[in-house]
Amino acid sequence: MKALVYDGGLRVQEVPKPEPVAGEALVRVLSAGICNTDLELLRGYMGFRGVLGHEFVGMVEHAENEALRGKRVVGEINCVCHTCHFCQIEMPHHCLNRTVLGILGRNGAFAEYLTLPEENLHLAPNSVRDDVAVFTEPVAAAFRIVEQVKFTPADRVVVLGDGKLGQLVAQVLWLHTKNLICVGKHRWKLDLLKNLGITTAHTDDLIERGVDIVVEATGSYEGFSRALELVRPEGTLVLKTTVAHPTALDLSVPVINEIKVIGSRCGPFRPALEALALGNVEVRPMVTEIYPLSEGVRAMEHAGTPGAMKILLHM
Amino acid sequence: MKALVYDGGLRVQEVPKPEPVAGEALVRVLSAGICNTDLELLRGYMGFRGVLGHEFVGMVEHAENEALRGKRVVGEINCVCHTCHFCQIEMPHHCLNRTVLGILGRNGAFAEYLTLPEENLHLAPNSVRDDVAVFTEPVAAAFRIVEQVKFTPADRVVVLGDGKLGQLVAQVLWLHTKNLICVGKHRWKLDLLKNLGITTAHTDDLIERGVDIVVEATGSYEGFSRALELVRPEGTLVLKTTVAHPTALDLSVPVINEIKVIGSRCGPFRPALEALALGNVEVRPMVTEIYPLSEGVRAMEHAGTPGAMKILLHM
Repeated sequence: MKALVYDGGLRVQEVPKPEPVAGEALVRVLSAGICNTDLELLRGYMGFRGVLGHEFVGMVEHAENEALRGKRVVGEINCVCHTCHFCQIEMPHHCLNRTVLGILGRNGAFAEYLTLPEENLHLAPNSVRDDVAVFTEPVAAAFRIVEQVKFTPADRVVVLGDGKLGQLVAQVLWLHTKNLICVGKHRWKLDLLKNLGITTAHTDDLIERGVDIVVEATGSYEGFSRALELVRPEGTLVLKTTVAHPTALDLSVPVINEIKVIGSRCGPFRPALEALALGNVEVRPMVTEIYPLSEGVRAMEHAGTPGAMKILLHM
Repeated sequence: MKALVYDGGLRVQEVPKPEPVAGEALVRVLSAGICNTDLELLRGYMGFRGVLGHEFVGMVEHAENEALRGKRVVGEINCVCHTCHFCQIEMPHHCLNRTVLGILGRNGAFAEYLTLPEENLHLAPNSVRDDVAVFTEPVAAAFRIVEQVKFTPADRVVVLGDGKLGQLVAQVLWLHTKNLICVGKHRWKLDLLKNLGITTAHTDDLIERGVDIVVEATGSYEGFSRALELVRPEGTLVLKTTVAHPTALDLSVPVINEIKVIGSRCGPFRPALEALALGNVEVRPMVTEIYPLSEGVRAMEHAGTPGAMKILLHM
């Protein structure tokens, strides 16, 4: 089968079709999304080698579970052992022995086929089209914030970043509070949010400091310093950005202001699928371009340009 | 009066005796302690210029409040406005207009006299000798952690750092949990804690990972990376260290493991004084040497050497 492989270089090549082991399903990928994490993997993040890609929707071609066979699915990306300490205390997404689709020790979704444990798969509702369902994973990552941080109506919330993740975070948090501003660098990206009725501001605008909860989703550690300027003493800074290389950071501000910095990663698929099905999160305007898998290298290049939002691959 | 002044260079010099304004007391300093923060101020932290020092015990020579006159006192270091937003929501130590004794916009305690708002002063119990009372401020900083983080008996706690602050943090947390290890680099410093019955380990020892709560009190950002190695996914990392210069840090680990990093600064004086009065925190073995104020420069040099713990100045 064809796959987009990173082995120090990036190319589309023929690789063996994966064979599901016990408990795994074989999924024919229909559509897959390029995430900033994929771009960071090319810069050395996680030291990953193999087939990239972790956002997908596909058809189950083989599964032990009848309910999955022939069905359209999306999939959680952490594949866990069920026996380690964290699995046993019901924190499976921190499994010590986990593999992560297209990120850690497991080939990913930029391929004609992938395998995942059946337990990772969720049926995609018929009403959710492929190029919407493919957003389930990043929408779930946005819902993770709601699991981690309690909002009150009085809390002022700022989302930093108008990129792919920032947009989804802003939309998901908007479902929970209207006391929110999404701050970004790009007028046209902010306009996508404005069209949904979400309050936005440009980074050049004056944002009142003393924000209760700041979500850093810029994809760059510059955003961390900006977030520290905005968040109030004893406020909460949710950190979504991961980049490949250490960056010079001053931690004296979070100490002096006694900030709570919370790392936030993968989230729950169920509310994400529901939000997509109900149209509570609107992703279609975020799709910049669709490439065939055979043009995967060009698609990745495009995804790394400032003018791009979500780039999809069709298999 | 004589004072230890930092103005880019460090020297003991004659400066005008401070004059208390309305609401302030004039305090004759008896003993003052050198903190790592003082050493960081010399490296540019906070851009401070003036009389250094914020840990002290002294005699009140002038006060409006009769209860203070002629009394031996210790003092909280944040001087606040009572009118800003944070003062009004009962977070005065985050006052937007604050000055901080010997750290921010206010001359400090390495001098024959200092002034502080009367409301900042606490009577030192007679049973607490000068060279013990002088530790009230850093002991209070250790108690701050207990205000911020809830411990359960099941929580494994690691304190990183066997220096001045690490020792006090370990002792204070030991009052709340015995499920604690203090990890340090210096056998003789760890022995001080062992003598108090506190569990210790050397940084070369194997420490089991998956720690629920790690307190970073090493005084160096290397400790931050070490703390991230030890803390469990969704665990808590309390950050006590402030250093003058930004350091290259990798924040992908706290994101992936969804760590909660909590900055922690000044704490409550009441429990600190009580712990010192009851002998629940033992500080005398931590005093390495006492210098007269006139030898303040040499005292600061000594405080910066690896063999030193607490260096005191007597006025």
